[in-house]
Amino acid sequence: MPTPAFLPVSSQGTVKTLIPEELKDIGITIILSNTYHLYLRPGIDVIEKLGGLHRYMAWDGPILTDSGGYQVFSLARLCQVADEGVTFRSHIDGSEHRLTPELVVEFQQKLGADIIMTLDECPAIDTSMAKVREAVDRTYCWAERCRERHRGSDQLLFGIIQGGIFPELRQQSAKAITSLDFPGYAIGGLSLGEPKEQTWSMLDETMPFLPADRPRYLMGVGSPEDIIEGISRGIDLFDSALPTRVARNGALFTVQGRVNIRKAIYKTKEQPVDADCDCYTCRTFSAAYLHHLFKCEELLAYRLATMHNLRFIIRLMQQIENAIQQGTFAAFKSDFLSQYQVTDEEVRLAQKQKWLNSPRHCDDTAL
Amino acid sequence: MPTPAFLPVSSQGTVKTLIPEELKDIGITIILSNTYHLYLRPGIDVIEKLGGLHRYMAWDGPILTDSGGYQVFSLARLCQVADEGVTFRSHIDGSEHRLTPELVVEFQQKLGADIIMTLDECPAIDTSMAKVREAVDRTYCWAERCRERHRGSDQLLFGIIQGGIFPELRQQSAKAITSLDFPGYAIGGLSLGEPKEQTWSMLDETMPFLPADRPRYLMGVGSPEDIIEGISRGIDLFDSALPTRVARNGALFTVQGRVNIRKAIYKTKEQPVDADCDCYTCRTFSAAYLHHLFKCEELLAYRLATMHNLRFIIRLMQQIENAIQQGTFAAFKSDFLSQYQVTDEEVRLAQKQKWLNSPRHCDDTAL
Repeated sequence: MPTPAFLPVSSQGTVKTLIPEELKDIGITIILSNTYHLYLRPGIDVIEKLGGLHRYMAWDGPILTDSGGYQVFSLARLCQVADEGVTFRSHIDGSEHRLTPELVVEFQQKLGADIIMTLDECPAIDTSMAKVREAVDRTYCWAERCRERHRGSDQLLFGIIQGGIFPELRQQSAKAITSLDFPGYAIGGLSLGEPKEQTWSMLDETMPFLPADRPRYLMGVGSPEDIIEGISRGIDLFDSALPTRVARNGALFTVQGRVNIRKAIYKTKEQPVDADCDCYTCRTFSAAYLHHLFKCEELLAYRLATMHNLRFIIRLMQQIENAIQQGTFAAFKSDFLSQYQVTDEEVRLAQKQKWLNSPRHCDDTAL
Repeated sequence: MPTPAFLPVSSQGTVKTLIPEELKDIGITIILSNTYHLYLRPGIDVIEKLGGLHRYMAWDGPILTDSGGYQVFSLARLCQVADEGVTFRSHIDGSEHRLTPELVVEFQQKLGADIIMTLDECPAIDTSMAKVREAVDRTYCWAERCRERHRGSDQLLFGIIQGGIFPELRQQSAKAITSLDFPGYAIGGLSLGEPKEQTWSMLDETMPFLPADRPRYLMGVGSPEDIIEGISRGIDLFDSALPTRVARNGALFTVQGRVNIRKAIYKTKEQPVDADCDCYTCRTFSAAYLHHLFKCEELLAYRLATMHNLRFIIRLMQQIENAIQQGTFAAFKSDFLSQYQVTDEEVRLAQKQKWLNSPRHCDDTAL
């Protein structure tokens, strides 16, 4: 698996709108899938019975599954956290379920992913230091139990660092988790609405503790401007639904920043959305056609936009890799960020989009 | 263009969910697009400015455009018919527009389609004989005017036969329209909710008047069982949104009839939806996976189902052609229809789906 790599999100066993062949054409080498979603639908046992997740979704490249922890804390209802594990109600039908460190390893083994994640407690960004400290301690205990259950398996089990926005806790978590000697480490609990400076400052607190010879994975980060910042701090792996989600909203990446293809200026634009882009969409269609599909809410719109945004990210990763190899990364980063405009609206949405309702969701009581 | 052929419907310049390369892989040789829809969005002039419809939607095979008449009579609001033409209000924003025979030829010329259609008056199935007679007369006058405006163009202009469910009027319309010597003829105003026996009986009244050396096109018909009946009566061309529309509802064609992929029996079915099918979907995914995508309302579901249903129709056309060439069509038809079950529900929906509200839509007063 070449790094740095970006993992598109295949929440329910599909990178929305695309088939595996298209992901490969775009240059995707590894994808992420969500244990939480697959557990609820179609059920872990269904996928196991059908030969595992690779076969189910016809993807023969590497798959990383998360543990389900993040979704339980952000998406599910009425979660209750205790040392044993976490109970939650399905966001689909309200039915009650339970995850423990042992169960999430078992689920991910049944799914047959190549890289699997430990169960972590991921507090909302406005959680008190005392509560985050508890989450850090629990995340460590859970990581240990995951490792124990995982012993003897061929899958790569990655540990997850937590610690919220508290430097001391980030360091504590990094030291504790790395002491368990995982083959890779993820940094969780960031990019949840905190200001960007805080994201990078937390990363700067954490990175020195992560061994450079193991993959370092920044969870839930995937905008062009954040990927370049992450790589410049030593991150190897990123996953995020952002490129595909904003694509379906008509926001397309260009070197100047995101553009809204629904805007009237595109109605008659004969050139592709991004003249420099080599994606299928830009090679085949005018911006005007894409504009039309979005205005008509045609399903093809979401597909073409998704292909473009994913290809933009993959090309960015390739450009970064080239720049690193040629020793010109600093100049590349500075050039890219000076051209790529992030609007106030995007900043506002990024801070708003996650977990504003989290206190209602999380009830830190006994299991 | 090989016949018999089935034209999938690309209402708004896209066969919903698919790209041109996929249509070709499926075996689609010609598509239909709707002048009415393209006139409203993005506008005929926009497509002309961008180099015509082929380039706009990146389809380099033949395109047939309809005149917009059918949509005006079935979809638009408050249409008023007069000898001069028809006025209507957009189903999107209520704005008022006008179509005349001359304008629809002009529009279709600007779109750059290969086959274009005359403007016809298409009455609802419950229209009185007197009104249908008027529509037949007007359709003839409009066909003449279209032919006049079209003179000197390279595009093939097809005439359309009307006549409702009245044998006498069907014959009258067929004689009148064929007297204008078009390079192809369409039969309109059928499959609008009338019992199937009536559809075939009207076709039987009409076909003897259509020259066998010109393509004969049955508009708006496209279920497997109807295509085989149509071909057995000499029809060469079919178009219909049915295969793609029912696909998006989870109804997939098999040799036993349509199946509803949402049903629980498919949740763990390892085989493809149709074991005999060579479409991408059946070659790649289990029925269980498709079931899951539909249950989760994943956008990929609609795309995979569309590919399957279109491929089913194309394979059916190929099988029919082979059977005709080998002189075994009668046996093939009988075998196929004895296996292919049409449920009462499908019959009920087919009779209900079109134009039950047509009297409210159509106001036969002066322009």
